[in-house]
Amino acid sequence: MTAPVIEFWFDFSSSYAYFAALEIEALAERLGRRVLWRPFMLGTAFEQTGAKGLSRTPLKKDYANHDWRRIARLRGVTFAPPTFHPTIALPATRAFYAIERTAPQRAPAFAKAVFETYYRGELDSGDPKAVQAFAESLGFDGAMVAAGMADPEIKALAKARSEEAVGRGVFGSPWFFADGEPFWGWDRMRMLEDWLRRGGW
Amino acid sequence: MTAPVIEFWFDFSSSYAYFAALEIEALAERLGRRVLWRPFMLGTAFEQTGAKGLSRTPLKKDYANHDWRRIARLRGVTFAPPTFHPTIALPATRAFYAIERTAPQRAPAFAKAVFETYYRGELDSGDPKAVQAFAESLGFDGAMVAAGMADPEIKALAKARSEEAVGRGVFGSPWFFADGEPFWGWDRMRMLEDWLRRGGW
Repeated sequence: MTAPVIEFWFDFSSSYAYFAALEIEALAERLGRRVLWRPFMLGTAFEQTGAKGLSRTPLKKDYANHDWRRIARLRGVTFAPPTFHPTIALPATRAFYAIERTAPQRAPAFAKAVFETYYRGELDSGDPKAVQAFAESLGFDGAMVAAGMADPEIKALAKARSEEAVGRGVFGSPWFFADGEPFWGWDRMRMLEDWLRRGGW
Repeated sequence: MTAPVIEFWFDFSSSYAYFAALEIEALAERLGRRVLWRPFMLGTAFEQTGAKGLSRTPLKKDYANHDWRRIARLRGVTFAPPTFHPTIALPATRAFYAIERTAPQRAPAFAKAVFETYYRGELDSGDPKAVQAFAESLGFDGAMVAAGMADPEIKALAKARSEEAVGRGVFGSPWFFADGEPFWGWDRMRMLEDWLRRGGW
């Protein structure tokens, strides 16, 4: 028997998704659910909404920088993005799907480790060589990961996931679906939990 | 002795601000604070961020429409915006500041009533005649409100408030400041309350 899922859609360069990645498994466990980790490229959604990344939007970038640090203090977690933040995390996204294809049960831990290491400023999730070396450091087969990132099938899958997200109305990161219900943002995780406990309202 | 304030910045056409308007006074009361109601024109901020209104943004508008109805059900409140939603609520904004000038203690109740009546679909807060008639129905001096909306001093004040907001980093509605700390969004009201109870973190 398989537990019902909470879909967790995210871009590896999204700081709010980082905070969500640290909390989503515990939330799902409280509800007897499993998490379906779904990295995608938020830029695909930005093409629809006309948005830019938070770090490139006047006013928003100042608030976001303040807010991220405030959340990190609240949760007692590290927040030290690399100087090149935000990177284009397509290599890490492809590596995730390559790992999911061969070792699906290990893919979520890989994703969480990518977030944690990026936000210690110690990984460029947009650099294929760095992602390969990082995967090796976690015990994955580096050749498999490198080949996966270059595999047309994985490239197409990463693209398809991004298009699937947009097709289902996703325009931000993190994003959650549970029983078809959409929730956008780290600050809606409590509402997501309430929704599932009550079976909606 | 005057209680410390929570500044509540909002655009009268913002649905999330409507939900906030229904809750902010109770929140402030729990904290022994008073609310400083500060309507402004969100369009002034959009000029900086490049954003459009939610109702005019692909993907976001569908989620927002769903989310507003979900919040209304959760809170047990009416959500029936007029067919012309979102209106440009400059007349209501000017009326607020005209009322605040002559009867400051009654201005918050006026603002709350504007929200409630607009979201029953019964007021065009962008129509000066409708705003005047509505103010009269609440017992305000209609001639004072009409003259206020047309008064260059009030027009300048409404514009200055919008510029003040942007100058202080406000790019969304609702927005709160408490002891200098900024909070954006209805879904951050709980964080605002936690922040004030704990004196920050």
